[in-house]
Amino acid sequence: MPDLRRDPVFGRWVIIAPERALRPSEILPRDPPKAEGSGPCPFCPGNEHLTPPELYALRPGGGNPNGPGWRVRAFPNRFPALRVEERGGREAEGFYDRMGGVGAHEVIVDTPAHGELLGEADGAQVAYLLAAVRDRVRDLRRDGRLRFVMPFKNQGSAAGSTIEHSHCQLLALPLVPAQTLTALSSALRYYDDKERCLFCDILRAEERHGPRLVDQNDGMVALAPFASRVPFETWVLPRHHGSHFDELSDTQVQQLGELLRDVLRSLAKALNQPAYNLMLHTGPLREGPLAHYHWFIEILPVLTRAGGFEWGSGCYINPTPPEEAAAFLRKVRSE
Amino acid sequence: MPDLRRDPVFGRWVIIAPERALRPSEILPRDPPKAEGSGPCPFCPGNEHLTPPELYALRPGGGNPNGPGWRVRAFPNRFPALRVEERGGREAEGFYDRMGGVGAHEVIVDTPAHGELLGEADGAQVAYLLAAVRDRVRDLRRDGRLRFVMPFKNQGSAAGSTIEHSHCQLLALPLVPAQTLTALSSALRYYDDKERCLFCDILRAEERHGPRLVDQNDGMVALAPFASRVPFETWVLPRHHGSHFDELSDTQVQQLGELLRDVLRSLAKALNQPAYNLMLHTGPLREGPLAHYHWFIEILPVLTRAGGFEWGSGCYINPTPPEEAAAFLRKVRSE
Repeated sequence: MPDLRRDPVFGRWVIIAPERALRPSEILPRDPPKAEGSGPCPFCPGNEHLTPPELYALRPGGGNPNGPGWRVRAFPNRFPALRVEERGGREAEGFYDRMGGVGAHEVIVDTPAHGELLGEADGAQVAYLLAAVRDRVRDLRRDGRLRFVMPFKNQGSAAGSTIEHSHCQLLALPLVPAQTLTALSSALRYYDDKERCLFCDILRAEERHGPRLVDQNDGMVALAPFASRVPFETWVLPRHHGSHFDELSDTQVQQLGELLRDVLRSLAKALNQPAYNLMLHTGPLREGPLAHYHWFIEILPVLTRAGGFEWGSGCYINPTPPEEAAAFLRKVRSE
Repeated sequence: MPDLRRDPVFGRWVIIAPERALRPSEILPRDPPKAEGSGPCPFCPGNEHLTPPELYALRPGGGNPNGPGWRVRAFPNRFPALRVEERGGREAEGFYDRMGGVGAHEVIVDTPAHGELLGEADGAQVAYLLAAVRDRVRDLRRDGRLRFVMPFKNQGSAAGSTIEHSHCQLLALPLVPAQTLTALSSALRYYDDKERCLFCDILRAEERHGPRLVDQNDGMVALAPFASRVPFETWVLPRHHGSHFDELSDTQVQQLGELLRDVLRSLAKALNQPAYNLMLHTGPLREGPLAHYHWFIEILPVLTRAGGFEWGSGCYINPTPPEEAAAFLRKVRSE
């Protein structure tokens, strides 16, 4: 039974999810987490029976639920870190804080084509995926117990992926994590001060200044953030203000699909198909449109490893200035 | 020239350290960071000329600086992320904040014996190392520009280490990182409320309750924290209150040396010599003894990989309940 626990010193929440294995008895002898390479791929068309029943699928040519014919398909994670069936009450344990592991943990398969990477798909396919994410976020927002959702993608085993077929995941939580609360409160302080969105101002400043711009189209901008934690960290933001990803228009879904595909393609060329983590930050589920917050995507290529200093301090040492990374990405894109 | 940059959204500082390489031109074709396995080991006795001049060494039988005969030896990192020679001024860049990369980045070689792991050394050797760390922290505290120091150890390549010979590092910064500010402020709130140290109360509660206790001696306690982020996360804390590691008595250095060696030995037995990150949290350099803060050591074995959810939210999914990890460590210790 999953359990959410709060560290009394650092204020961070941890999901204790024993059903995701690594019990002491499974650790000795040491084995890396097994990639499911031996059996049939559970994410391929025709193998839908190997996954839990679907929550969403797009079948432009028709077809039955949990059968083939889809372009994107979402279902609950088979080994969920959190579950909608759990009770969500908060309680004290001594002076510790815990709550039941209510939440959602879903998989969204990017493409029916096994082995096709997201940067290799066409813009329309990426837009199908983004529309699926938008739909899943909308649906989860209806559950009044959930306060936060984060769609993400681990590409490659160095990024934590254990299944080769390209896919995204999302986790929804009954709390807003401390890191997001920090972002919300700095954005709110900025707004209170200036009556402008911090992210909108970052976009305008980067557009004017230039050296950290990576790519852009009518609706979306990609940039290397000023305080990039890792080499080639890239953010993608909507040009027009919007706090919640699930309010994206169909046009914006198209624009984001194209820019995201182009950025992933440039990263693949620049870094030789790197593993990466991609995260989508969107406003808290229980709050309406916010003038001070702005949804955005972070992409962190896995080229270096976090060591003790990063774990202990939350500071990062980045050997690649973002201005150099952005210049290199602009160069490979135009080649 | 290193550069400290603050992210305006998340408030975290990043060290942009281009001298540590990974320029775009070095990334293509992709190579893993090279372990220095080809030449002679720069950390072995007799090869002192391969490192920068030493800052500290213990030579119980005598011998010359920068020559053999030492039991522990500290010197500046050859590719420092920060340097004492830099200027430390803060400045605005648009609405971004940056400061010069003043600081220190040092290496402390644990043992003259190449291939000997810290958990295999005797308690006295571990105490020599801890005394060296105490001395280096004391020395850096004299530099009024430095506000924070974190000694740490990356054991094994999966933990980010590139040199095989067992060693620790430390980084000193001209600022206190946001993660430590959070810990300081939750500890202060707790102290203001109860007039007791949060960490002392955690120790007492864990001692009484029991299931998360890992090991202890007269001066030190090892436990699996309630909200462990990773399987087998272990904290070591002094039983008697103390906020700053550099105020440790010689007796406490001995006690910590023995307990730390025992804990590392148990982790090695339980997890088959895992890679791990070890971090020492000590009070801010510019503040005297604090009644509300407590130095402590974190050990994070590298068994799982942080994925997008952890990066994006700062929440962790831990498949191993700390109560099970602690029970397993108590069992292997007594075998």
